[in-house]
Amino acid sequence: MLKLFKKASKKVGLPPGTLVQIEEKKTEKVKINIIDYDEAQFQEKEAETVEECFPFKDKPTVTWINIDGIHQVEIIEKIGTYFGIHSLILEDIMNTGQRPKMEDFEDYIFVVVKMIYYDEKDNEIKAEQVSLLLGSNFVISFQEREGDVFNPMRERIRKAKGRIRKMKADYLAYALIDTIVDHYFIVLEKLGEKIEGMEEELVTNPTPETLQTIHTLKRELIFLRKSVWPLREVISVLERGESSLIDESTGIYLRDVHDHTIQVIDTIETFRDMVSGMLDIYLSSISNKMNEVMKVLTIIATIFIPLTFVAGLYGMNFKYIPELEWHWGYPISLSVMGAIGMSMVVYFRRKKWL
Amino acid sequence: MLKLFKKASKKVGLPPGTLVQIEEKKTEKVKINIIDYDEAQFQEKEAETVEECFPFKDKPTVTWINIDGIHQVEIIEKIGTYFGIHSLILEDIMNTGQRPKMEDFEDYIFVVVKMIYYDEKDNEIKAEQVSLLLGSNFVISFQEREGDVFNPMRERIRKAKGRIRKMKADYLAYALIDTIVDHYFIVLEKLGEKIEGMEEELVTNPTPETLQTIHTLKRELIFLRKSVWPLREVISVLERGESSLIDESTGIYLRDVHDHTIQVIDTIETFRDMVSGMLDIYLSSISNKMNEVMKVLTIIATIFIPLTFVAGLYGMNFKYIPELEWHWGYPISLSVMGAIGMSMVVYFRRKKWL
Amino acid sequence: MLKLFKKASKKVGLPPGTLVQIEEKKTEKVKINIIDYDEAQFQEKEAETVEECFPFKDKPTVTWINIDGIHQVEIIEKIGTYFGIHSLILEDIMNTGQRPKMEDFEDYIFVVVKMIYYDEKDNEIKAEQVSLLLGSNFVISFQEREGDVFNPMRERIRKAKGRIRKMKADYLAYALIDTIVDHYFIVLEKLGEKIEGMEEELVTNPTPETLQTIHTLKRELIFLRKSVWPLREVISVLERGESSLIDESTGIYLRDVHDHTIQVIDTIETFRDMVSGMLDIYLSSISNKMNEVMKVLTIIATIFIPLTFVAGLYGMNFKYIPELEWHWGYPISLSVMGAIGMSMVVYFRRKKWL
Amino acid sequence: MLKLFKKASKKVGLPPGTLVQIEEKKTEKVKINIIDYDEAQFQEKEAETVEECFPFKDKPTVTWINIDGIHQVEIIEKIGTYFGIHSLILEDIMNTGQRPKMEDFEDYIFVVVKMIYYDEKDNEIKAEQVSLLLGSNFVISFQEREGDVFNPMRERIRKAKGRIRKMKADYLAYALIDTIVDHYFIVLEKLGEKIEGMEEELVTNPTPETLQTIHTLKRELIFLRKSVWPLREVISVLERGESSLIDESTGIYLRDVHDHTIQVIDTIETFRDMVSGMLDIYLSSISNKMNEVMKVLTIIATIFIPLTFVAGLYGMNFKYIPELEWHWGYPISLSVMGAIGMSMVVYFRRKKWL
Amino acid sequence: MLKLFKKASKKVGLPPGTLVQIEEKKTEKVKINIIDYDEAQFQEKEAETVEECFPFKDKPTVTWINIDGIHQVEIIEKIGTYFGIHSLILEDIMNTGQRPKMEDFEDYIFVVVKMIYYDEKDNEIKAEQVSLLLGSNFVISFQEREGDVFNPMRERIRKAKGRIRKMKADYLAYALIDTIVDHYFIVLEKLGEKIEGMEEELVTNPTPETLQTIHTLKRELIFLRKSVWPLREVISVLERGESSLIDESTGIYLRDVHDHTIQVIDTIETFRDMVSGMLDIYLSSISNKMNEVMKVLTIIATIFIPLTFVAGLYGMNFKYIPELEWHWGYPISLSVMGAIGMSMVVYFRRKKWL
Repeated sequence: MLKLFKKASKKVGLPPGTLVQIEEKKTEKVKINIIDYDEAQFQEKEAETVEECFPFKDKPTVTWINIDGIHQVEIIEKIGTYFGIHSLILEDIMNTGQRPKMEDFEDYIFVVVKMIYYDEKDNEIKAEQVSLLLGSNFVISFQEREGDVFNPMRERIRKAKGRIRKMKADYLAYALIDTIVDHYFIVLEKLGEKIEGMEEELVTNPTPETLQTIHTLKRELIFLRKSVWPLREVISVLERGESSLIDESTGIYLRDVHDHTIQVIDTIETFRDMVSGMLDIYLSSISNKMNEVMKVLTIIATIFIPLTFVAGLYGMNFKYIPELEWHWGYPISLSVMGAIGMSMVVYFRRKKWL
Repeated sequence: MLKLFKKASKKVGLPPGTLVQIEEKKTEKVKINIIDYDEAQFQEKEAETVEECFPFKDKPTVTWINIDGIHQVEIIEKIGTYFGIHSLILEDIMNTGQRPKMEDFEDYIFVVVKMIYYDEKDNEIKAEQVSLLLGSNFVISFQEREGDVFNPMRERIRKAKGRIRKMKADYLAYALIDTIVDHYFIVLEKLGEKIEGMEEELVTNPTPETLQTIHTLKRELIFLRKSVWPLREVISVLERGESSLIDESTGIYLRDVHDHTIQVIDTIETFRDMVSGMLDIYLSSISNKMNEVMKVLTIIATIFIPLTFVAGLYGMNFKYIPELEWHWGYPISLSVMGAIGMSMVVYFRRKKWL
Repeated sequence: MLKLFKKASKKVGLPPGTLVQIEEKKTEKVKINIIDYDEAQFQEKEAETVEECFPFKDKPTVTWINIDGIHQVEIIEKIGTYFGIHSLILEDIMNTGQRPKMEDFEDYIFVVVKMIYYDEKDNEIKAEQVSLLLGSNFVISFQEREGDVFNPMRERIRKAKGRIRKMKADYLAYALIDTIVDHYFIVLEKLGEKIEGMEEELVTNPTPETLQTIHTLKRELIFLRKSVWPLREVISVLERGESSLIDESTGIYLRDVHDHTIQVIDTIETFRDMVSGMLDIYLSSISNKMNEVMKVLTIIATIFIPLTFVAGLYGMNFKYIPELEWHWGYPISLSVMGAIGMSMVVYFRRKKWL
Repeated sequence: MLKLFKKASKKVGLPPGTLVQIEEKKTEKVKINIIDYDEAQFQEKEAETVEECFPFKDKPTVTWINIDGIHQVEIIEKIGTYFGIHSLILEDIMNTGQRPKMEDFEDYIFVVVKMIYYDEKDNEIKAEQVSLLLGSNFVISFQEREGDVFNPMRERIRKAKGRIRKMKADYLAYALIDTIVDHYFIVLEKLGEKIEGMEEELVTNPTPETLQTIHTLKRELIFLRKSVWPLREVISVLERGESSLIDESTGIYLRDVHDHTIQVIDTIETFRDMVSGMLDIYLSSISNKMNEVMKVLTIIATIFIPLTFVAGLYGMNFKYIPELEWHWGYPISLSVMGAIGMSMVVYFRRKKWL
Repeated sequence: MLKLFKKASKKVGLPPGTLVQIEEKKTEKVKINIIDYDEAQFQEKEAETVEECFPFKDKPTVTWINIDGIHQVEIIEKIGTYFGIHSLILEDIMNTGQRPKMEDFEDYIFVVVKMIYYDEKDNEIKAEQVSLLLGSNFVISFQEREGDVFNPMRERIRKAKGRIRKMKADYLAYALIDTIVDHYFIVLEKLGEKIEGMEEELVTNPTPETLQTIHTLKRELIFLRKSVWPLREVISVLERGESSLIDESTGIYLRDVHDHTIQVIDTIETFRDMVSGMLDIYLSSISNKMNEVMKVLTIIATIFIPLTFVAGLYGMNFKYIPELEWHWGYPISLSVMGAIGMSMVVYFRRKKWL
């Protein structure tokens, strides 16, 4: 289940900028992957120690250092010291409860994005915080754990597809954000299918499971909204191009991903509107069904309770009026029952119940 | 049924600006229609190949190239190359899940609008994305499939009615948008009729079908809103007249269509207000009806269950008190029943149930 | 019933600025009334032909030309040509589905207002679109049909009451708008009375008619809101005094009518708040009533169904145990019934139902 | 009951600025009280005629003229003429349906405030419109009737408590507004007590009276909101200190009362939030209660209706199968009844109803 | 329980700036704690009299004077006089119903914050108003009573952990606010746990206790929102760095706490969204449950009431048709009962009730 809130209690009382691992203890090794390229050359390697990244800082080629796992304080600290990152930013990288934001220090830009994707294997929505540090010729990306949506991008870099190998680090950062935003659409597609699947059963056959699905959808949309809404502002600031780290030619691409973000937000709002309308429809459907159950009960009771009384009455009377024999009593009781039944049906029709 | 969301999963992982056909595979031939005119002359032809359009690019007359079908990547690509359109814009033309927007490149303006119209033949609302490229002396319009709302406009050009033949390409683009906005009013008219038709049955005779209609109306209004809302901003930017492609004299016409868009949005909001109020009324009506059903059940039960008991009691007693004969027992039982019935009626009246 | 939407389908496909009569065909003669005055003199006449108005265009006195009926295209066209009005404005005058707006051409100002008044005779709210053309020394007003709220104003002009005869055409236009806004208050008064009348029956005795009234009130408030909300902006623009047609001394009067408009909007919002709260109260009241009906049903069933069973049981047993005679069975059955009744009452009290 | 809307129909059709008494006819004498002071001296008197106020206009001391009653047109008119007040302002003073506002004429400031206070004696909330005219050395206050919240202030002036005797007329106007705002807190306190008192009974024992109280609270909060919301803007404009009538040293006091107004608005919004939540809770509580009633009914019916049937069945059979005697029939019928009862209880437990 | 409103009635009628103790009478001694430090030295002491604080005003070291208890007017007054604080500010310190705000006097800044923390011992949320006075080299903090969240901070000062001993008074004020904001997260964590704990029982087993919990959560969120929302603006103004009392180097820390505040607000809004959705789900769940209860009742009644009637009918008939003996009557009655039961089941299945 998507967590709407991350624990932060361990941090309380410590001086600001102190690095603490707030997630549950993890022991897996942190994986560091380095991809270094320019138009002419390409190099990819798995780093054993964090120090292997350092030579790339001043190489003129574009370097993408991807770090899977933020639970080892010393790795974050070493990168922070070597690349000159402010301790409050390092704290933000480790604190996975951030909302998307960007901060522009003169020699690097810090961006937090939420990577949300549909995991086909586990058949569920997964979410991870991705923090990006964009320098003049490098991008460092921090992820919570292994597994991400960037494989097609890695392939494009390896095979020099599209224009990525011709561009600078700012385009690399753009491409990472663009890939993340593209996956929002897939998540929305899945939610859209769920919503459409539910629409029919909503009016015809509402069940408690429908209610559960509506509730889950609402929760997922609240989560998505919280993750995507601030991203619009983030990209909008990047697009305005006030930083020297972002080339003017990247502007049109950022405008494109900005448009996509607005489309995502628009669709989330539309879905929220629909799901919230569904709850009202659900409640009305349930009332409708109950109404029909009550009608059956009322019809049964209206017909048979008087009949039972008439039967009882006749039973009582005949015992004491032997001369009123059954061959008269029976047709009389039948006509009484008939009259009652008829008047009931007429009454119901007039009230538009049947 | 109007789709609130278009699939975009095929695009994920490809470099930005890659053209992919995201709709289901289509095989029909793409139809290219060229209308070329100025005040003095008029020419119309069906182009066999996309190359036939190219000579019109630099002709001083106004040319309207209309392309029905966006599923052939190579046609879009050829036009893009020849007319100098950015690859991200071509991608937007093929991706039919766009929200209305406009982008101003210096030598052309790109506008996306949603054409929504009521198809009398199929008796349903239809929607299509229309992308416009406005150059200095041409308009290229891309539609998803054949059939549109522009026939009266074509007639006006052919017969030189109104001022269209005297005006430039910007007026042609305005006229296309204006025609699309005019059709929003017809769709609203149809929805308005549906709403008014429902208003009476809502209070007097709510059925599950009413609920279904309310739900469908809500969905259609959400769809319309999503399609029209951003158009206001689009036209407002066009109207501000910052582009050299838009003549000052077209300004007053754009202001007029801007007013119409606001009227459409206003009416959509009014309809949303009304439909959302209807759901509450519906729920209350259902409760009202249930209340009446329950009253009948209660009255029946309140009168006959005690009577049945009394009849049973008398039956039991008379068996063992033979001297209490039926001609006394019967009036006594009647008066007991009468007393119970009377007190019930009095009680109900006091509670204002009857 | 107030129409929330006017048909516009006849206009579709025609060149912009084409004049079409969109309302149902009317055949009555259009009535043209001319009032011409300055501080010293006064003249009033019924014009037979539209041409009779033309001489007043350049007379230095203030002229008010009032036209009742907009269904004769040629009259609107002639006025448009003679007074130099843009064809799009003439189209707006004939299209009665406009929202309130104002447009400032340099030599005239166009204002659309909704005249809404309570017709004492027919006991219902009526609405009409009033279009005003304010020139340097004339006001032309277009109304949908005869009958309006301006008679006291005409009397003031005739008898030179107040300052109207001393002022210019801009004050005349102000006075027309002010009179219209004053009548909004009367409509609100009527609605306020309806709301207060409903408040008591809401909690004590909710009926389906209450629901119908709430629904009608909601509709009327939506209509009013749609008609008045944009007027605030209209008057605010007039008040800012950017047009040379509006004298500075009229500013304080426009500020006064602006205040009134805000008061009207405020009251509409307050009424909407109340009516929407009423629906919730209504639903709760209905549930309350149903609860009480159910309690009676349950109490009746809880007391008499076990008794009927006991009576049946005794009847069955006594038949086969003759030595258990009725004079013992009767007190036993009574005490069993008493015990059951007592425990029910105790149970109900504990649950706070009685 | 607090009126949400004041009648204004008498005014319609009259020239703007005409003074009309819109409230029901009153005959009591208007009371005029004059307090005149500076740091050294103090004078207080009851004026018999309005002319007695005139000498104070040009006296350098601070004068507070308080007028209780606005139903005598000639008094308002005389003051208007002597103190040079615009006729539209005089109209506003007499029209008690104003929303709080301020208007700055160069030589005087006009402020409308709503005085709302809790009357301990009558145990209800009372409201009155107070209009203030602030001149360079006088304040004229108009109230609808005798009785107000200013007595402690009068005492402070008489006994020279605090700094009021040392300050100018602008501080006097501030002090009047501040006293009025202070009383909003007391009204909120009373409402807060009502809300807290209702919170417990809401979930445990909702009655129709609870519903009535919620409805009344909602109405009172709508009234308060309408009266206080515009006051924020009013004080904010006064505070900005653009008028020469307001001394810079009064600024900090106005900022303080501005803060208080925001606190009042904040609390009103909080209360609205709570009361609107209460209605939902109420509806749920009612449903909960009905659910419990239904459970009892169902349990009773589920246990006794089958038993009655079994009893009837046995009665019928034994009559015709005399050899199946009661000492066998009775234990068999008991075990059948037991089995049915047991299975019901199991079924209910599984459904979590018991 | 958290109070949404503080009594203010005692203050009414007094001159502005009068100090009154508005909380219930307290008699405990006010505790004054002084911490004085710079990078080299540290001193901490408990002051017996308020005069002991005065020497620290002009010492160049940073001094933190913490006052637990605001119920002794003379202490507040003495500090006000000696440190030159405006009397309206002193009034604000004593009035614990303030909303968070900041006021910038040139030589000191006044900040009001709400300290909200989860008390593990009493297992409840506690709230206190903290007022801060920031001077050039001192911070005076006023708390309502002993016990706060600052102990880890005191430890950091004592042990010179982090950078606090190297920084000025503005950093001390920041650190106090930061600690308070950190504790908001813990309160949110507790609320988040409550919400998640409730989510499951909501659909499966809604009880009146669930309703109570939802209501309490709503109240707590309203309280939190009221306390935190204005803080964003407060910190934003501090961050803008217009006061000479705040060093530029503190800016990045204030931006960090600003981010945290936005995160808190975001989470509160998310929680509000969820809790408000829960109420709808709750109501639907209750309706669902009632629906199921009704189905059981209807099934029981539908099967057994006709059977009882049939049994009664047979009993009546056999008495008078002795030749129709039981060995025929019994199978006939069984088949009639079977037919009725079967048709009921078929009917229910068709209506999708079973």
